[in-house]
Amino acid sequence: MKAMVYYGANDIRFEERPKPTIIQPTDAVVRLTKTTICGTDLGIWKGKNPEIAQTAIDKTGSFNGRILGHEGIGIVEEIGEAVTNVKVGDKVIISCVSRCGTCENCQKQLYAHCRNEGGWIMGYMIDGTQAEYVRTPFADTSLYLLPENLNEDVAVLLSDALPTGHEIGVQYGDVKPGDTVVIVGAGPVGMSCLLTAQMYSPSEIIMVDLDDNRLAMAKELGATHILNSGAGDVVQEVMALTGGRGVDCAMEAVGVPATWDICQRVVKEGGHVANVGVHGQGVNFELERLWIKNITITTGLVNANTTGMLLKTCCSGKLPMEKLATHYFKFEEMEKAYDVFKHAAEEKAMKVIIDF
Amino acid sequence: MKAMVYYGANDIRFEERPKPTIIQPTDAVVRLTKTTICGTDLGIWKGKNPEIAQTAIDKTGSFNGRILGHEGIGIVEEIGEAVTNVKVGDKVIISCVSRCGTCENCQKQLYAHCRNEGGWIMGYMIDGTQAEYVRTPFADTSLYLLPENLNEDVAVLLSDALPTGHEIGVQYGDVKPGDTVVIVGAGPVGMSCLLTAQMYSPSEIIMVDLDDNRLAMAKELGATHILNSGAGDVVQEVMALTGGRGVDCAMEAVGVPATWDICQRVVKEGGHVANVGVHGQGVNFELERLWIKNITITTGLVNANTTGMLLKTCCSGKLPMEKLATHYFKFEEMEKAYDVFKHAAEEKAMKVIIDF
Amino acid sequence: MKAMVYYGANDIRFEERPKPTIIQPTDAVVRLTKTTICGTDLGIWKGKNPEIAQTAIDKTGSFNGRILGHEGIGIVEEIGEAVTNVKVGDKVIISCVSRCGTCENCQKQLYAHCRNEGGWIMGYMIDGTQAEYVRTPFADTSLYLLPENLNEDVAVLLSDALPTGHEIGVQYGDVKPGDTVVIVGAGPVGMSCLLTAQMYSPSEIIMVDLDDNRLAMAKELGATHILNSGAGDVVQEVMALTGGRGVDCAMEAVGVPATWDICQRVVKEGGHVANVGVHGQGVNFELERLWIKNITITTGLVNANTTGMLLKTCCSGKLPMEKLATHYFKFEEMEKAYDVFKHAAEEKAMKVIIDF
Amino acid sequence: MKAMVYYGANDIRFEERPKPTIIQPTDAVVRLTKTTICGTDLGIWKGKNPEIAQTAIDKTGSFNGRILGHEGIGIVEEIGEAVTNVKVGDKVIISCVSRCGTCENCQKQLYAHCRNEGGWIMGYMIDGTQAEYVRTPFADTSLYLLPENLNEDVAVLLSDALPTGHEIGVQYGDVKPGDTVVIVGAGPVGMSCLLTAQMYSPSEIIMVDLDDNRLAMAKELGATHILNSGAGDVVQEVMALTGGRGVDCAMEAVGVPATWDICQRVVKEGGHVANVGVHGQGVNFELERLWIKNITITTGLVNANTTGMLLKTCCSGKLPMEKLATHYFKFEEMEKAYDVFKHAAEEKAMKVIIDF
Repeated sequence: MKAMVYYGANDIRFEERPKPTIIQPTDAVVRLTKTTICGTDLGIWKGKNPEIAQTAIDKTGSFNGRILGHEGIGIVEEIGEAVTNVKVGDKVIISCVSRCGTCENCQKQLYAHCRNEGGWIMGYMIDGTQAEYVRTPFADTSLYLLPENLNEDVAVLLSDALPTGHEIGVQYGDVKPGDTVVIVGAGPVGMSCLLTAQMYSPSEIIMVDLDDNRLAMAKELGATHILNSGAGDVVQEVMALTGGRGVDCAMEAVGVPATWDICQRVVKEGGHVANVGVHGQGVNFELERLWIKNITITTGLVNANTTGMLLKTCCSGKLPMEKLATHYFKFEEMEKAYDVFKHAAEEKAMKVIIDF
Repeated sequence: MKAMVYYGANDIRFEERPKPTIIQPTDAVVRLTKTTICGTDLGIWKGKNPEIAQTAIDKTGSFNGRILGHEGIGIVEEIGEAVTNVKVGDKVIISCVSRCGTCENCQKQLYAHCRNEGGWIMGYMIDGTQAEYVRTPFADTSLYLLPENLNEDVAVLLSDALPTGHEIGVQYGDVKPGDTVVIVGAGPVGMSCLLTAQMYSPSEIIMVDLDDNRLAMAKELGATHILNSGAGDVVQEVMALTGGRGVDCAMEAVGVPATWDICQRVVKEGGHVANVGVHGQGVNFELERLWIKNITITTGLVNANTTGMLLKTCCSGKLPMEKLATHYFKFEEMEKAYDVFKHAAEEKAMKVIIDF
Repeated sequence: MKAMVYYGANDIRFEERPKPTIIQPTDAVVRLTKTTICGTDLGIWKGKNPEIAQTAIDKTGSFNGRILGHEGIGIVEEIGEAVTNVKVGDKVIISCVSRCGTCENCQKQLYAHCRNEGGWIMGYMIDGTQAEYVRTPFADTSLYLLPENLNEDVAVLLSDALPTGHEIGVQYGDVKPGDTVVIVGAGPVGMSCLLTAQMYSPSEIIMVDLDDNRLAMAKELGATHILNSGAGDVVQEVMALTGGRGVDCAMEAVGVPATWDICQRVVKEGGHVANVGVHGQGVNFELERLWIKNITITTGLVNANTTGMLLKTCCSGKLPMEKLATHYFKFEEMEKAYDVFKHAAEEKAMKVIIDF
Repeated sequence: MKAMVYYGANDIRFEERPKPTIIQPTDAVVRLTKTTICGTDLGIWKGKNPEIAQTAIDKTGSFNGRILGHEGIGIVEEIGEAVTNVKVGDKVIISCVSRCGTCENCQKQLYAHCRNEGGWIMGYMIDGTQAEYVRTPFADTSLYLLPENLNEDVAVLLSDALPTGHEIGVQYGDVKPGDTVVIVGAGPVGMSCLLTAQMYSPSEIIMVDLDDNRLAMAKELGATHILNSGAGDVVQEVMALTGGRGVDCAMEAVGVPATWDICQRVVKEGGHVANVGVHGQGVNFELERLWIKNITITTGLVNANTTGMLLKTCCSGKLPMEKLATHYFKFEEMEKAYDVFKHAAEEKAMKVIIDF
């Protein structure tokens, strides 16, 4: 089969690979019908995860490449003998998080930290979904039946983007009706925060980014205010928009100190900072000012424990989730898709959908 | 009347002052029977709160001194005409937090941030409890009837220390039965965390401090393990004690970067860091490592919203709260009391109780 | 001034009464600009609350009449000296719940059960809002500033109907994104449940009533399914609509055994029954079947603790709250308004708005 | 092997049965070392669960008997190939609840209602633990490693009694520090409520029963007050003990209308009634009085989702859980054990421990 394979920093290859097979009785093999590319995949490509080279060593002791991707939908091709919730032929959404469902952390719904070699492993510690077929461990908990009436592009977003925004941004950020929310970063994850936040009816959602195109799109997706952080003092502007009070919830969806700083400076007493961004360095936490403010800060990798809930709300179709999908490619064009997604801002791309 | 008055850095005076009177219809005047000294009072003495000099300007434009103290119990001497919950002659506990009960924040029980000039104001923005009499604003919400069967030393601890430990350490830290907890700092607030944490039956409470005397006392008050952070690598020791897992909840009860660092390094995935300490500078937040760990960090000033609950549990007498009171003075010895509390470690002092 | 006064079962009189004055320092007097009639007012009229006759005894020992009404908006005319949150001339929403803000129950936000003679008292234990002026106790906590951009009819609904639906139906019923909800009763309170439930994005809301007009209106207000309980076996129909599973949340918004029965029979394991209706008799609780189903049942009178939150969401205007107001009258037509509201079904009336 | 087998009402036989084997890859077979008898087992014996006769039909079409028991500890003898959390030779606690861990309900921790043929099935729908060996489905989620330092009698109580009291009584009843609690019924489940409630430091626990011996034991296990419901008007006595206020939480641990009535009459506004008892008939729910009281009523079968938490707290040994075990038998004496437990009151028996 064809697959997009990582070999090292700046070295990914679209090449022929053997079709995966069942290893554990709890596995399934899924034939992909759609996949997509995540910012994390770009990060791997750029060399941010050299640890991958330790995970696919062949008999000769050398790194054998790792198939990328942890998102997608497809048809169940084969199941292990302990699998009961899906059967061959079922149309499924593949969750980006694999979970045993039985370890201490899974019993707390902290699936991102499954202690039986689960968590985020596909396209990272094991081969992923940017291929014609993928082996999915713990199929009973990691695959979701795709309902007939669900838009398939939205289904792809349910693998990772929407649950990440919802769980790590909106739920951890405790967004409630009437709240004022700021989201710093209007990329796919920030946009997922924006869309899923609206499920809880906040009064104001202020979107902050450097890119006017993305801000315009945010407006279309439901932001009540947009602020270009390159154009002025965003902290001051947010304070002005909130009558000097600050926000109930600030979501960091970029992953650099400057955006963290915006968040810790606009949150009001009793408010929440939900960090969704992936950070490469530490940040200065202004405890000399914030120790007294009764704030809550959260971090996290998606648990995908709300995928089922989101699936139901997406079926009801009230929020324009599908608008996150901006570009379409055939699987044969995988390299082109990566290229476009790498230059997402110039290409005005949010999520690219790849069809098999 | 006699009172302990702050005049500036390193300048506090035990002197004669006029007896306070009712100003607002919601005020009461209370005759103190016991008070105590807080670490915050020491901080003011040392000059950490120069803003106080802006708050008590007399007609000549000069700072007129500020009576210290925000803790104590006493007898209601006089009430304003809108006061209904207490009457003259009632024995009461004075909460360190004044609250209007009606503003946006008070309606969320975020009393520390009362927007009608409440919050922590006694002994800071208005005259406090280290005096024979004190005016207490918002008497209906800020005074608690002192039950007959409650130890009066414990009652004094209910003004600030116990609610602070309970709300900002234990509740914000989400301590649950079976949890493993580390408390960094075995001063009065850390000890209050230790005592009130036990109300929720954690399995292990590891106490960390530099002072062996305090650690020995922590053991007596219910710590299951004690670690002297001067004697080794505390992070490593905590990891060893927890089978390499880290703790469910880490409470910072000191207020310096080194103790923050211990906390952020021993918390396990999905765990809580509850900052209780008062910080004078920012800290490095290791987001490059913690963004993925699904942790929750909280900060805060006590709301005193659990004072009533604590009062009931203290009456049942199951936890040795009274052991926090280690030294006793007469009010005339106020200066000596400050001196002993200033050298708390050498004096083996935890809380000093001052009797009128 | 003119007022609608209750004198006994089937005896209400639109007559001249003295203008109220400030009694407590925490009172305000408000000049009404709009009011409405509640189902409870009809109940009083019909004689369901004979206890009222004990509450307004004049010097001669006879019942002096009670001004009805606990809803409305107006202009602050006068304030007591302890009132700080509103000032003369402010445009305000009057909450149906008066609360001291300081008693044990108010400190738990259980304002409906304020122990300092608060709770629902207006138009019941003290004179109410169906008058040109009303005295509002505890003005600081019981009045809300009416924002410029809020529809005034919606403002009137914020006195009681919307908070009741939201708190006792939706919040107690724990409505979450993706949930399936049934609401039994499409009167003003059931409709308020329907509207405010949508703030939390349930997937399905099934509305049940005997009146096709009301069901048609429910559809317009956001119900996904409507069922006429006179036309078939509603329990069976709800089960069919939910794939035999039952609902996550059933709200009882009528107050008779038959509607309670529907609720207890359609709730699924782990689900909620939120009783909002006012019941005149006990019901049979099928514990022989439900003891094992891990359900939660709640009851309650509105606390009005979410009025502020609702006010913010109503300002954002996403839900058609204003459609609940179906009929308009001048204050002089108060008797006619009662007559129409008494025959609400025939008149296709939901809420009647009375203008001063 | 020997086993205690149900054949019909009043017909249980201690007889030879074939040793169980692995059927599903997720199964384990455990060799029992201790078991016990539950009130539910007595109920089956008495004929309350005739549906069992439909579950073990042999080839000839006749009911082949069902091995009783859903509690116990033992040694893992054999595991299916998909089992990863336990291995042969491990000492384990067998949970009374089997759960797939993957269905919709298991993903909500509503394990009692596992939709893949889990829930309470052992000793009911499949053969149970009153035998030398038992097959345990879903071994990864249904078995808990038994720590060295845990009292083995307490371990047996962790199969069902303690989690039931904790989850359905204490957690559903929302017991908090300072609360006043009444527990109606001082049998094994009521006592488990009493013991586990203390993990949350309520101020008062009032125990109600008809048996003075059991009440005396309750006092020893931590009840602050005991009331014999045969000796007076319990409702009045509870009101008197609570200053006329009623209780924060009332737990029903019997299962008859009279005990339900006590609970619904002593709960205070805003309080909880947690039904733990197994009811054979409906009860009258006094909605005409309770609709306005903002109470919460819960029901449920244990989910065993807190077994791990309880295991940790039991290891810390602060509560005298082991005192629930009052009588000891050898497995050969199984019939005698049933006989004693059947007459538990006269025998002053609480839980009987059976040793293999």
